[in-house]
Amino acid sequence: MPLYLDDLTPGLVFHGGPVMLTEEAIIAFATLYDPQPFHTDPVAAKDHPLFRGLAASGWYTAALSMRMITQAMSEVAGGVIGVGGDLQWPRPTRPGDTLRVECEVLEVTPSRSRPERGSYVVRHRTLNQAGEEVQVFTARGIAPRRPNPAAADAAE
Amino acid sequence: MPLYLDDLTPGLVFHGGPVMLTEEAIIAFATLYDPQPFHTDPVAAKDHPLFRGLAASGWYTAALSMRMITQAMSEVAGGVIGVGGDLQWPRPTRPGDTLRVECEVLEVTPSRSRPERGSYVVRHRTLNQAGEEVQVFTARGIAPRRPNPAAADAAE
Repeated sequence: MPLYLDDLTPGLVFHGGPVMLTEEAIIAFATLYDPQPFHTDPVAAKDHPLFRGLAASGWYTAALSMRMITQAMSEVAGGVIGVGGDLQWPRPTRPGDTLRVECEVLEVTPSRSRPERGSYVVRHRTLNQAGEEVQVFTARGIAPRRPNPAAADAAE
Repeated sequence: MPLYLDDLTPGLVFHGGPVMLTEEAIIAFATLYDPQPFHTDPVAAKDHPLFRGLAASGWYTAALSMRMITQAMSEVAGGVIGVGGDLQWPRPTRPGDTLRVECEVLEVTPSRSRPERGSYVVRHRTLNQAGEEVQVFTARGIAPRRPNPAAADAAE
């Protein structure tokens, strides 16, 4: 059953995951998109004053989170489409970490100008195996309204 | 010459890029991290009411932007380390788009509790070949203060 904007209510929570981070995948992603020694070189990372060891690029945490979010929210009609939001990385992710997501609907707002859709705010929390937040993305998404059969009849 | 927190001043702009998006790379990234038809299937994407054609995952735009940012800001001492910020995707990116980044320092705040470092706010704008914003990430970063030789002498 697809979930339309009308079906998304504040307090609704979707769960996704888990995924495990490997050193190889952390380094491979960072080599392509965030080539800095604390993300690509376990030896150099040991001496970094903030990271003290290899840490994944925040964008890798974000990409893995999105994969889990698309699974968790696969029933949302039209797909998971975000226009942006507040993205925080409270702590780094590391090789061996196991991540999961909890996606809680906070607000739902039908569009005034477009009766067929609306927007919603979801707080996507990415948690590690200790239950600690490694990413919090509070984002606005767009979803279609439930089609109105009566309106469709009237339009015929 | 490394750029310490003391060298970052509001109004300073770093430029990075370009990078071009290919359909193959857009699909490959989305298949791994954001497997939704409007990001992976050019035919299905044509009929999507919002995208009207294949669009890259926002996280791919973000990952490519980070690669350009690490190049643009490679002189920042200790690397480009962000703790988060506001991430917006005003319009999608498409196969054939050529992207670049402009990173403008907005604020610089020495730490009160940690004299050796501080934080700064940068607005990273990712622009397409028409000069349109495809991503704006206004983020807080962490950078070390310039080492004080006098203090080092005193500590000996």
